Order: sequence, then C-alpha cells, then structure tokens
Amino acid sequence: MKKPLRIGLIGYGFMGRAHSNAFAQVNHFFDLEHQCVLQAVCARDGNKVKGFADRWKYNSVETDWRKMIARDDIDLIDIATPNNLHAEMAIAAAKAGKMILCEKPLGLNGREAEKMLAAVTKAKVPNMVWYNYRRCPAVTLAKQLIDEGRLGRIFHYRAKFLQDWTINPELPQGGAALWRLDIKAAGSGVTGDLLAHCIDTALWLNGGIKEVTAMTETFIKERKHNLTGKVEKVGIDDASAFLARFNNGSLATFESTRYARGHKALYTFEINGENASIAWDLHDLHRLQYFDHSDKGAVRGWRNIHVSDNGDHPYVGNWWVPGLQLGYEHSFVHQVADFVKGLETGKPAGPTFRDGLATDYVTDAVLSSARSGRWTKVKQVK
Amino acid sequence: MKKPLRIGLIGYGFMGRAHSNAFAQVNHFFDLEHQCVLQAVCARDGNKVKGFADRWKYNSVETDWRKMIARDDIDLIDIATPNNLHAEMAIAAAKAGKMILCEKPLGLNGREAEKMLAAVTKAKVPNMVWYNYRRCPAVTLAKQLIDEGRLGRIFHYRAKFLQDWTINPELPQGGAALWRLDIKAAGSGVTGDLLAHCIDTALWLNGGIKEVTAMTETFIKERKHNLTGKVEKVGIDDASAFLARFNNGSLATFESTRYARGHKALYTFEINGENASIAWDLHDLHRLQYFDHSDKGAVRGWRNIHVSDNGDHPYVGNWWVPGLQLGYEHSFVHQVADFVKGLETGKPAGPTFRDGLATDYVTDAVLSSARSGRWTKVKQVK
Amino acid sequence: MKKPLRIGLIGYGFMGRAHSNAFAQVNHFFDLEHQCVLQAVCARDGNKVKGFADRWKYNSVETDWRKMIARDDIDLIDIATPNNLHAEMAIAAAKAGKMILCEKPLGLNGREAEKMLAAVTKAKVPNMVWYNYRRCPAVTLAKQLIDEGRLGRIFHYRAKFLQDWTINPELPQGGAALWRLDIKAAGSGVTGDLLAHCIDTALWLNGGIKEVTAMTETFIKERKHNLTGKVEKVGIDDASAFLARFNNGSLATFESTRYARGHKALYTFEINGENASIAWDLHDLHRLQYFDHSDKGAVRGWRNIHVSDNGDHPYVGNWWVPGLQLGYEHSFVHQVADFVKGLETGKPAGPTFRDGLATDYVTDAVLSSARSGRWTKVKQVK
Amino acid sequence: MKKPLRIGLIGYGFMGRAHSNAFAQVNHFFDLEHQCVLQAVCARDGNKVKGFADRWKYNSVETDWRKMIARDDIDLIDIATPNNLHAEMAIAAAKAGKMILCEKPLGLNGREAEKMLAAVTKAKVPNMVWYNYRRCPAVTLAKQLIDEGRLGRIFHYRAKFLQDWTINPELPQGGAALWRLDIKAAGSGVTGDLLAHCIDTALWLNGGIKEVTAMTETFIKERKHNLTGKVEKVGIDDASAFLARFNNGSLATFESTRYARGHKALYTFEINGENASIAWDLHDLHRLQYFDHSDKGAVRGWRNIHVSDNGDHPYVGNWWVPGLQLGYEHSFVHQVADFVKGLETGKPAGPTFRDGLATDYVTDAVLSSARSGRWTKVKQVK
Repeated sequence: MKKPLRIGLIGYGFMGRAHSNAFAQVNHFFDLEHQCVLQAVCARDGNKVKGFADRWKYNSVETDWRKMIARDDIDLIDIATPNNLHAEMAIAAAKAGKMILCEKPLGLNGREAEKMLAAVTKAKVPNMVWYNYRRCPAVTLAKQLIDEGRLGRIFHYRAKFLQDWTINPELPQGGAALWRLDIKAAGSGVTGDLLAHCIDTALWLNGGIKEVTAMTETFIKERKHNLTGKVEKVGIDDASAFLARFNNGSLATFESTRYARGHKALYTFEINGENASIAWDLHDLHRLQYFDHSDKGAVRGWRNIHVSDNGDHPYVGNWWVPGLQLGYEHSFVHQVADFVKGLETGKPAGPTFRDGLATDYVTDAVLSSARSGRWTKVKQVK
Repeated sequence: MKKPLRIGLIGYGFMGRAHSNAFAQVNHFFDLEHQCVLQAVCARDGNKVKGFADRWKYNSVETDWRKMIARDDIDLIDIATPNNLHAEMAIAAAKAGKMILCEKPLGLNGREAEKMLAAVTKAKVPNMVWYNYRRCPAVTLAKQLIDEGRLGRIFHYRAKFLQDWTINPELPQGGAALWRLDIKAAGSGVTGDLLAHCIDTALWLNGGIKEVTAMTETFIKERKHNLTGKVEKVGIDDASAFLARFNNGSLATFESTRYARGHKALYTFEINGENASIAWDLHDLHRLQYFDHSDKGAVRGWRNIHVSDNGDHPYVGNWWVPGLQLGYEHSFVHQVADFVKGLETGKPAGPTFRDGLATDYVTDAVLSSARSGRWTKVKQVK
Repeated sequence: MKKPLRIGLIGYGFMGRAHSNAFAQVNHFFDLEHQCVLQAVCARDGNKVKGFADRWKYNSVETDWRKMIARDDIDLIDIATPNNLHAEMAIAAAKAGKMILCEKPLGLNGREAEKMLAAVTKAKVPNMVWYNYRRCPAVTLAKQLIDEGRLGRIFHYRAKFLQDWTINPELPQGGAALWRLDIKAAGSGVTGDLLAHCIDTALWLNGGIKEVTAMTETFIKERKHNLTGKVEKVGIDDASAFLARFNNGSLATFESTRYARGHKALYTFEINGENASIAWDLHDLHRLQYFDHSDKGAVRGWRNIHVSDNGDHPYVGNWWVPGLQLGYEHSFVHQVADFVKGLETGKPAGPTFRDGLATDYVTDAVLSSARSGRWTKVKQVK
Repeated sequence: MKKPLRIGLIGYGFMGRAHSNAFAQVNHFFDLEHQCVLQAVCARDGNKVKGFADRWKYNSVETDWRKMIARDDIDLIDIATPNNLHAEMAIAAAKAGKMILCEKPLGLNGREAEKMLAAVTKAKVPNMVWYNYRRCPAVTLAKQLIDEGRLGRIFHYRAKFLQDWTINPELPQGGAALWRLDIKAAGSGVTGDLLAHCIDTALWLNGGIKEVTAMTETFIKERKHNLTGKVEKVGIDDASAFLARFNNGSLATFESTRYARGHKALYTFEINGENASIAWDLHDLHRLQYFDHSDKGAVRGWRNIHVSDNGDHPYVGNWWVPGLQLGYEHSFVHQVADFVKGLETGKPAGPTFRDGLATDYVTDAVLSSARSGRWTKVKQVK
C-alpha cells in the first residue's frame, strides 16, 4: 500500500491546473512509495473553486487559505497564487508544519524570500519552488552533461525568454489572469516572471552570478487597470536585459521581453565551454543541441538530440517508446516525482527555497542596476 | 451530473497505457457530458493486470475477455491487443451491444475488417479505430486547410514512417512486446503497423487510392522466436514501399521501414497543391510547415507554424497557454474527446470501422502487389 | 609557366554561364599545372554570342559548331546545348581528338550514349559529364564517409528532386530557355533532367541499380509551343517516380517533379546504413546531416555539419576561412579542378561518359517501366 | 566600350583575395558601364605579391604602397591591410585623388576615422567601407522590408557574432594571418573585428545608437607573440558584449566572442517590431526568417525565405535560376556592383566613410564603457 501524500492547493489559475495535472499523473508513470491525493483546493470564489474541484476530483474545497493550512488531513500546501501572496502563505504553512511547494518567484524580492527560507528552515519542512524547466528532459540532460565535465571551462552563457502577448496597448493591467501586469500583485514585470526562470536554470547549470549591469523598459506607459477601471501608470518592466559575470569567470547575456513579435514562449539558453557547447529552446523542448569538439573534424557538427530514448534520457523511460515526444506539462510531473523521491530517500530535490532565494537575489540586483545604471554585486546565499 | 461512460479495456501493453491515459485525462481538459470511468481492465496474467489496475485506478480486473464483454456495467470495449485478436473480440463486443474502440489496423486484412464492419453495422454500436495521428493538432490543422480549399488541385502526396529498432539481428521475434515481429500475431510487418498510419492519414486528407505498385523486403531472414525458443524464418516485411495514384489524379510515394538508422518514429507527410503545400513530421509534431504561393514573392517562404495558439489551432485551447507544446499522448486524449462528442451530438467522429476497412484494403493491395510485382487496384469501400 | 587548356564552349544558356564561370574561376582558387583559356564560344546567333564572349572575355566566337571543333587552337569542347545535340557534337569532337565535357544527361537515351562512349573510347580523349552535384563539398564528404565504411550494410536510399516552375498552364513548351519542356529537344521531362542527377549521385554513392518500377505523369496535357505557335500535346513527363533495388540489396525510392509547390530546386537524398545514416539537401547545400549510431546514447543525434572547415572538408580549404559558406556554382569549379587534375595525374575523374551511360540506362528503364507498368531490369555497363 | 576602372589593391591576405574575386567577377554578372581592371597589387614581399598577381591576373605589382598611390594609371585604391594602416593609406590616397575602398573597421578608433572622413570629403573622392554583409541578399531584403514599414515600431534588436578559433592557448598572437590578435595591428579584439560588422548592419537597419553599457574579457591572458618570439600579455578583447538603447527607443543586446565552441562565423541578428519580426544567420546566409503578425492566426508562423528567387530578391536575378544558393563571396561582388553603379548614377552607395565613422564611434563607446563600467553616450556623426 502506498502512503498518501495529501495535497492542499491554493489557486486554480494556469499554474493551479498545471500542478493539479502533475499530482494526477505522477503515480500513473512513476513508481513511488507515496500516492498523491488531491485532498483540497482553495480559492476565494466558492463557485469557481467547486467547478475546479469537480473537474480534477479534489476531495474538498476551501475558500479561506488559512483554514486549509490549519487542516490536519493535509500534508502539503501548494501555493499557486499571484506573487504577492507567496510569502505570507508559505510562512503560515511552514508554521503549521506543512510541506510546501511554492510557485516562482519565491518572494516579491530577496527580503521576503529570506523570511520564507527562515520559516521552512526553522520548521524543518520539505520545500520546493516550481521552476519546472529544470525538468524538461533536455534541460536535465544538459545538467548531466555539464556534471560529467564534458564542457570543460565555461566561457559563455546566454539566455533569453521572449514573448509577444502584451504588445497590444488595449490590454488592461491587473485582474484575474492579467495580474502579471499589475506591479502590486507581480512585484515586477518580466524580470520576476521570465528572467527568474532563466536565472534559476543558469544558477543550476553554471553556478553563482557575481555581478550584473541591467536595463529595463516599459514600452506602454499607461494601461487601463481592470480592478480600478482607470487608466493608470504601468509599474512593471516590459523588457529587461542584463550582462553578467559568473563566479566561475564566464560571461553572460540575459534578456526577456513580452514585445518580441513572433515568439510566444521562446526560452532559450546556450552554454559555450572549452570542449563542448549546449543549446536548448522551449519551443522545441524535446530536443537538445550539443556540439562536441572532440568529434573528428570531418563529421563534427551540432548534434540535434531528440531527447526521447528510453534508458538514455532522463524521465523518458517512464513514458512511451523511443521517438515520441513529451510536452510542456511533463516537466511538472517530473518535478513532483522528484520531490516525492526526495521525501523517500531523504535527499531533497531542488530547487528548494534556498535556491529560490538565490534567484531572487539576482533579480533584486538586476532591478537595482537598471535603476542605478551601474554594475551591481549579487548577494550570495550563505 | 455527468453521464458515466464505463470502459472495459483489453490489453495493458504500450497501447493499453496510452488509452488509459486518454480516458484518465479527457475530462480534465475537455467539457463533456460524459465522465469516462475506468471500469475494468482485462488480460490473461492476473497478477500483472492487477498491478496495471492499481496504477491507473481501474475499478476491477478480468482475465477472460469474453467475461468482461458480457458484463452489464460496461458500456465500451477498448481493444488494445495484438492484431490477430481484434476481429474476434470486436465481433463479440458488437454482438453484446458494446461501443468499440479498436487498435489499428482494424483486421489482419480486409476480409476480417469486412466482418468487423458488418458486425458493428448490424449492432448499430458506435465504433472507432485508434489512428491517433489524425488528432495531433498540426495534422488536424492540415485537414482544415485542405477543407478550406487552400491547396487547390493536388499533384503530389508523399509519406514515410521510418524506425530503426529492429536492425539488431539478435532481437527475437514474438513474445510480449515483440509480437509486432511475429507474423501470426501481427499479420504483416511495417505494412500493417506503420504504413497503415500513413494510409489512414492520406485517405483522410486526400481521398481514396486507386492503384499501387509495391515492394517489400525482409532484411533479417531468420530470428529466434521467443515463444518457441527456436531460430525461425521471419515472416514479416521489414520494409515496404509503394507508388500510388489517388482517385483525384495525384501521385504518391509511401515508404516504411524499421531499418532507417537515426529515426525512431519519423512519420512525415507532404502534400503539394497548385496553390499551397503542407508538410508534417512526427518528430516535431507540434509544428506544421505551410507554403502559400499567394504570399508576395519577396516574403514567400515555408511557414513554420508552432501549432500552439489558443483559439487559432485545434484542441490547443483546452490545454495551456500559447507557445507551450503538446506531446504524443495528447492525440489519444483528443480522439476520446471527439468520440464522446460524437456520442453527444449524434455525429460520429472518424476513423470509424468503415475507415479502418478502407485502410486495410490498401494494405491488402500493397502486400499483393509486392508479391506479384504488378500494379494492383485497390478495393473501394462501398 | 602553366600549360594552356584552350576551351571551346558550345551554348551560352544557363549551363554555358555556369561552365564559363567555372573556367574563369578555377585557377584563382586551385593550384593546377594548366591554365584554363576561354578560347572560343559558339552559338547560332552571332550577335548574342558576341555579347556573351565580351562578358566572359572569350578570345573568339563561332556560329558553326563544326567549324569550332575543327580548330587547331582548341583542346577541349564543352557541350552546353539542349540534350538532342549532345551525341552528334560529342562524337564529332571525339573524332577531332578533342577532350570533351558534356552536359547531362549524356545522350537522349542509352543507345545514343553507347555511341558517345564508343567514340571517346576509340579516340582515347578525356571526357566527363557535368553531373555537378557530386562536387558540392557536402556530397563529396558523403562519398568519403561511405568509402570509409562508416555506414556498414546499406538498407535504404531515397532521393527526390522537386521543383514548381511549370505549374502555370500558360507557360509555353519549347523555344530558348524553355527547351526542357520540348520532347524533341529534351528527350524526356523530369526523368532525364532531374532524376538523372539523383541517379548519378546514387550510382556513385551506392553502386548499381538492378531493377525499377516506375510511374510518370503529364499533369498539363497541352501547351502552346513557342516554335510552332500552336497549342500542342505535351510530350514530356511532368513527374516521375520509381522504386528500385540496388545490386547491394538496398531498397530505394526516387521521385522528381516540377509540380511541388514551394520547392525551387529541392534535391535531397538520404542513405540509411546499419551503423550510420547520411542526408543532404540542395536548398542548404553547405550542410550534411550525419547520424552515427556509435555515439553514446545520451548524446546521439543527427549531426548538422556545416561543411566549411578548412582542411577537414573537401574543396573548402581552397576558398575562404571556416564558417563561410559556398554556393551553387562552386560545384562546377570543383568539377573543372578535378578534371584538370585528372589530366595531370593520369587518373581521370568521374563522372566519365561511362558513368553517364550508366545513368542513361537507368532512365531508359524508368521510362520503359512507366509505359509497361512492370518491374524492369536495368542494363549494366560492361 | 566600357570605361575602365583601374584598381590598385594593397594587401593580399584573406580580404585581398575576397576583393580580387569581387573585381574579377562583377562584370560577369552585372551590367555596368565600367569594366574593373586589376591594374596593380601591392605588398612588401615581392615574391609573394608576384604569385598573387599571377593567380588573379593583376597587370603589375608594387612593393611600396606610396608608389602605387602615386601612379597615374590607377583610379581606385583598395585597402586590405591590417587596421593600423588604414588611416595613413586612405588619407594619402585621398590626397592623390583616388577613389578608396577601405576594409573595416575604418580607423583604429573614431579619431582616426574622423581624419579619414575629412580627407575624402576634402578630396571629393568616392569612398566606401567593406562592410560586406549588408549585401548578402537576405540582409538587403531585410532592409527593404523595414523601409517598406512592415515592422512598425521597433522594440528590440539583438545581434551576435560568435567564433571559436582562439580557444587554443597555444595559438600565437600577431604575425601574418594572426595580426587580428595583435593589439597594435588590430586596435582591439572582437569589438573592432566582429562587433563592428554587427554595428554597421544595426545602424543601417535600425538607425543610430544613443548609449551603451559594455563588458569585455580576455580569457587567455598571455600568448607567444610571433613577431617578438616572446610570451607577452594579450592586449585584445577576446569577448565583448553590450546593452544599448537606439535613438528610436528600441533596446538591444550585442555580443561577440572567439570562444563560442561550435560556431565558426555565426553572425546573427533579429529585429522585433510591432507588426513583424526578422531574423538572419550568416551560417545559412541564403535564408531570411520573417514573421508577419498580419497573417491569419491559424497559418501564422515564421517564414523561412530561401532568398533565391529571380526578380523577387535583391541581386539574385543576376546569378543563376531560382532555388540555387549564393555563398559568402557574393556579398563582395554585390558591393562592388553597387559602388560602380553609384559612380554611374551619382548616388553613392553606402557604407561610406561617414558610415564607417559612425560605427567607430559606437566601438569607441563600447570599449570606453567596458573600462569605466558605466553607461556611455555614443558620439553621433554630424
């Protein structure tokens, strides 16, 4: 008999759905000692949350998150709310002794994230941040290749995350699915939303960032705010780019925007090492590009690896047969699988709140540098 | 309250898993009047089928398929067994008044498929064949573009399905997952396995095939048979290719093999019309290539369509947000969604057994032509 | 001092220009003992040929090809005329003791080509056919990889040459640049024009073809003929496809057409061997795709080789620095370089007239099979 | 009769060859009133320059560039020497009333370039800088699409130029082909070599750059110097990256390096506008990627334009037939063609020395910002 892992989810938006799917699917494909149980889902709108619970077969609903956190029949709180609620909820959940999965970015800034890390550390509760892209099989493979030492000394890292969904000036800021445009709910624009993903991957693959110089821009200066009904100044950054130096001496460029016509979710990164290079692209997430200089000259070229071989590629053997590609949501399933395995082995899987704090320190430095126009040191997690 | 659609699955191999996933997922993402209920799963090995049922949360297990078909609490029989069992099971299920979903190819040959079609026609039970690739969103989009008349007169169709998993001569034929190499269980080699997919899509997109000339080859002439333990003559075709003329006057080339080193599941097709062309590739199934000659010359080029826009692309709006790709198993979910909608609207979704028979007629002609060395007329479904 | 190689060119169309460029460029980039001298160009229209000679700096012009062949100050006759003139000219040139470069296909058919081969054999004159694609560096590299034994046993060969320039029914047949549509001048349609290229490469890379079954089609049945001014029946094949078995036991599909919307000159081939596979595409002629199964599983993928490394890739070291791509016309320059080196080393470079005859035998079999509907043996060059 | 344009070339390295080829080829493919005449080539090594002249058929050789500039029978001085000689030679040539084609970057810095511009302005001699990539047909097409207003308001520009040829620490600095590693001869490293190309294109396509913040790095700190024979400190920048704001409000990232394993000459740029986006890549220089948001949603995608259609694409109609790709050196031929047409029409083609100065101002600002760590205003050409 499997041990139940009873989940209480807060929020039922895009991420609430992605997380629910992960909990529903993980035991179909991964052999775990635990069985994920969709115990409760919480949101303010009682009718809507009921509908969501029906669809995903949650056992119960709540409309007050504090009440849900207080329940004895819940082991894990999953926070899938706008950013400005993460800290309060996570700290309360930690105090209640719950395991916590928290959407990214961890806090609105490093200061909040420090408190969140302190809370889970004190409570000794398992914790994780939903930087899901680490667990696209191609990205996990990239990590393995780096850990095997295939790249040698790293010279360059470059990442970008390009979208185009806010070019229309008629798009309002704030309210429901648009909270990412509301500075109060989101804390920042693309820096905390998209660059945070790029940074988490980069810290994982290439170690800490030492310093940055950044620029941000708000192309559309005013938008109607859905909550107030008025045209208001836009507070978020529409675009954000920075140069960086990693602790290992490599150089980097990072960029994100919601104004890159033609790209819906083009998260790409590339790493150039002395002996090999790696590149990845979220628009074709099932492939990894790999160049190995030790290949004989005449047949040396970028290898286009379809990351779908059972046995050879991470996670893939749990799904179908070779050649059949996985999609976006699988990264969330893999994250839950690893989180649960971490419980079972006692070796917690990242990214933990500690990792989430490290990313928040980088976004803090990026936003600070964009204001000051200066190179800015990144605070390192002790 | 949703109406239950109680499913009895026979077989728990690769396809049993893909179908189970589809039944488990469809109500999470599609708004239907019916709720799929995993009522029973049947296979000969009682222990293994119990494990499968635990994993997928089937309500019960059976080890005798005739018993399962006889149960009153099952509405739909899903056949996911080796090919040589399809006919008997489907005919029995039809007689029992069950709806039927049957793995492809429908029968071992057209003669069997005729009987299966007769049985469901007589019993008036909803029926479908699992040619899942029709419902990769990019393939469905291709169908829509053709139906809109964007291509004009069709000149050419070409399809191939390339794999490389049987190159190793030590691979046995037959037994468990290897039944596709056993002529008795499979009926043919790549012709019924891979070409059948290519043909189903082709008939759907481009209408009936008039005549073919074909060649087949068995590269490895003898293999150990797992069931007998002896080295035996290989009865299946390792590779199969044919030229064809469609009823609409267009020309075609078709090819499939399990000896194309470097390709795990490279199903591709391309259609060239007077005004536009379309191409697709299962290794990047979330993209459709489209060339429109009416584009202005200077900016005319193949459009690489990432089929992931909510609203603009079939099925995709039911999943995530723009730019996030779907994978292989989604095609099965879509097929169940459409089958259920067919029940609800009274407009049955294809491919029905009638469509499955049409494909079997083509594979019959291919195998016959390969034997005779002659152009062979394809029998048309009346 | 370099030895002069005095060239007399017949024809100034597309191929006359490509050849002239090759003669003009070869000594700029290749170290040869001979200097190509543009001695004379011949065509019926005296004014036009004069303009052509001025542009390319030919030393003289002729309007009667027999006269040019008779000249003492010419070492090599280059035939760049419509197909129906090749045989007569080549035979006359051989009798006059000239070296001969002849445009492809060698003859209108195998019978003509046999006579041409006999003539050059008797006269012992160096000879070559302009199947230029052998000398795109990526194709030459493919040959090297095969000769190194990297592919192992070959299972599959597939080639196609797709164009779209004759879809418009208003396009006339015959006259000037349109002679390729005139059955009298061209001998056949795409079979002798495009498939001949595919076949020459295939014979070079994969050895002789044993038998074929083919189909051809003429989509537009009547066109205005520019020379007669009347609407006449179209005699050429618009599209041609065939299945083949090579002498080495591998299977093949070949296809060509001028009705594939979206493709201007998409010549592609792919070879699947036991251990490795190779693919090439004229639309990106500077790249070779290579899959090596001996790569470690996790990092196995198709290598996209940018064939532009000095030293490692054929011909490229004679041009620029690594990473800078060559184009179409370079293949002709390489062919002249190899022809001249053949003179200097005594090891004639192919494709010779003997090779040209082998290709004509295959196109003969293809056209014959398309008429008979039967598998047809290919005559082998003795 | 064509007017002669008598050229005197200084330098016979990589660029001396590329320029010679352009002069030799331009009249073969472009209809001009002038005939380029390879009148003289100059370099210090008398034997080597003789060999070069023989190969390219220069009419004469010189070993003293001042003597060549003084010759009456030369109309145009082409400077293809290391960067530190450009200014002196160009100023002398201008004083002698010669037309001037000068390799990029124009001067070692803006100060030198200002003097060079002043000299040609005073002498009223036609002048041009060899930023050849403007005339890859795909890049020229990009310019046309922008000028047609297809992109609308520009939000983003990003460019990079990645190479990997100096990763080996044993590679010496300086001497012959290695002068690009010698700070005295080159003035800077990748900033003046590679970024200068990126900047010239950017200024042409997107207007002036207002300010930059930059970082540079020298990964290998010491190398043997071929001229002194000693291990010396490396003075050049191995990598250089900067953020920028254009005068039109768009944001940019620029990066170049010689330490990006796997890239030989990967110059890429992308421009994101309100209505459309454009991307280009030197490794596939015959293609332009174009995304047009006005395409209907279901068939919207990046168009992969093979820039090889006669009539529709710049320059291509002068070469072969549709579908056949051009290569690297064609950009130089096009530049000469345009320069000569500029003489004939009185409308000088860019990039002139004035444009070259603008680029030098940007590289000055980049190097200055890399030293100061501050955002730096770019001097604008008056």
